[in-house]
Amino acid sequence: METVITLEELRSVRSRLPQPVGLVPTMGYLHEGHLSLVRRARTENASVVVSIFVNPTQFAPHEDFESYPRDLQRDLNLLHAEGVDLVWTPTPEVMYPEPYQTWVTVERVSRRLEGEFRPNHFRGVATVVAKLFNAVQPQRAYFGQKDAQQALVIRRMTLDLNFPIEVIVCPTIREADGLAMSSRNTYLNPQERQAATIIYRALTAAQKAFEAGERDAERLKGIARQVIESEPLASLQYLSCAHPETLEELQGPVHHALLSTAVLIGKTRLIDNVLIGG
Amino acid sequence: METVITLEELRSVRSRLPQPVGLVPTMGYLHEGHLSLVRRARTENASVVVSIFVNPTQFAPHEDFESYPRDLQRDLNLLHAEGVDLVWTPTPEVMYPEPYQTWVTVERVSRRLEGEFRPNHFRGVATVVAKLFNAVQPQRAYFGQKDAQQALVIRRMTLDLNFPIEVIVCPTIREADGLAMSSRNTYLNPQERQAATIIYRALTAAQKAFEAGERDAERLKGIARQVIESEPLASLQYLSCAHPETLEELQGPVHHALLSTAVLIGKTRLIDNVLIGG
Repeated sequence: METVITLEELRSVRSRLPQPVGLVPTMGYLHEGHLSLVRRARTENASVVVSIFVNPTQFAPHEDFESYPRDLQRDLNLLHAEGVDLVWTPTPEVMYPEPYQTWVTVERVSRRLEGEFRPNHFRGVATVVAKLFNAVQPQRAYFGQKDAQQALVIRRMTLDLNFPIEVIVCPTIREADGLAMSSRNTYLNPQERQAATIIYRALTAAQKAFEAGERDAERLKGIARQVIESEPLASLQYLSCAHPETLEELQGPVHHALLSTAVLIGKTRLIDNVLIGG
Repeated sequence: METVITLEELRSVRSRLPQPVGLVPTMGYLHEGHLSLVRRARTENASVVVSIFVNPTQFAPHEDFESYPRDLQRDLNLLHAEGVDLVWTPTPEVMYPEPYQTWVTVERVSRRLEGEFRPNHFRGVATVVAKLFNAVQPQRAYFGQKDAQQALVIRRMTLDLNFPIEVIVCPTIREADGLAMSSRNTYLNPQERQAATIIYRALTAAQKAFEAGERDAERLKGIARQVIESEPLASLQYLSCAHPETLEELQGPVHHALLSTAVLIGKTRLIDNVLIGG
């Protein structure tokens, strides 16, 4: 496994990799969710490239860019064990050298949900992924369903800008008690960690109601909302029942939807989602 | 020479072209300026691709998108004679299929001059060029110095987004009387065509003053402004003496500058520029 930092090193090593190349973009502090993407990439490509970059432009000034967990040596050990060919760990100066001034924005699908609570977040995500795509030039790129809106934004950007890349979205990986794996789970103290299980319990309560015949969007959301509100450490930011491609909020009877939520557990902001119907 | 319309056709033909590939993006209605780019691309690449697309997203609603001159058969004859390998003539629906929603913006270098008079112009330019780059995947791309700010915007975008493409800017090609070649010159009636020569005469007057020792930015601009104001059919939009890379307006003594202008001749908006010093 080779590890590179600069764009020139990356291009040099990349040009010698057998095709097709699969790319797994990450912010590091890897968990089983990331590793599931790496394993899928490993089965589908001759070469696997992983990027590790905590992207400053997708964090707002008040957010957790500085405190975001990092452990590069542990990450490299995990990736080596998965048979990854190349790891790119650019610095902010490599990604955004002065006088950097170009941004990729995806409009409609970025606007609601995470886009509403994190105004410049998806501009940062789309921009850094466009840069990763151009630098690595993979045939396939792998993202997790846990960040459902991010996956839709990236898929839209990939189509809209004619990137010749297949975007593959892999299932959310969960802890035994249902909590979606996230590098941010490390922020939770033991009491909060227990409380955080309310998120997936709320989503599955609505999912079960759907399977039992409930179709009304408002009532499905009400069921999930009630579960979350039963947990004193949880504070709901949004609970959405939306079209799974456009993310337009649904009303009345639903047949296929993305049920998604953002919840503060103490000071830690967590997101999760389930697909219903379809 | 092959001519294709859809993205799928383009990719199919492109994949069989010998490398390296040179791309010349155009809006058609080709003149000697375009052909000079094609000839340069022909000497430097194994294959030459030309795109012809009057890009609606770089025109404001009140501008000349509808009336922009078009003559595809003439263009194809000219390109065939130059030994071009592949011509891509996408439709607006091929370039911007519903639900299109992704934009590339280049901030600082887009803001002034053309960006001030044509607010969304460079967003449209950067977006369509990013799409052309991803679709054609050239090793080199060719632009004219006549659109100096456009060339800087594209060069900045190419670096910022890590496109592995060399951007080559070729000299402005002029009519015998100095008027910079432009598809929009066709809008001029004979009287306006004569009046339009004032633009290059103004720029060269300032250039000559520089060569004779005048270094003050304001006085250099004053010399050019005075020449343009001597022509009753000409109405000055801007006259700038700016840093040739950042386009920041210069003050006091200048050593190297882009002297650029936009002038209405009757209702026809024309731009031109010269480099001084350096």
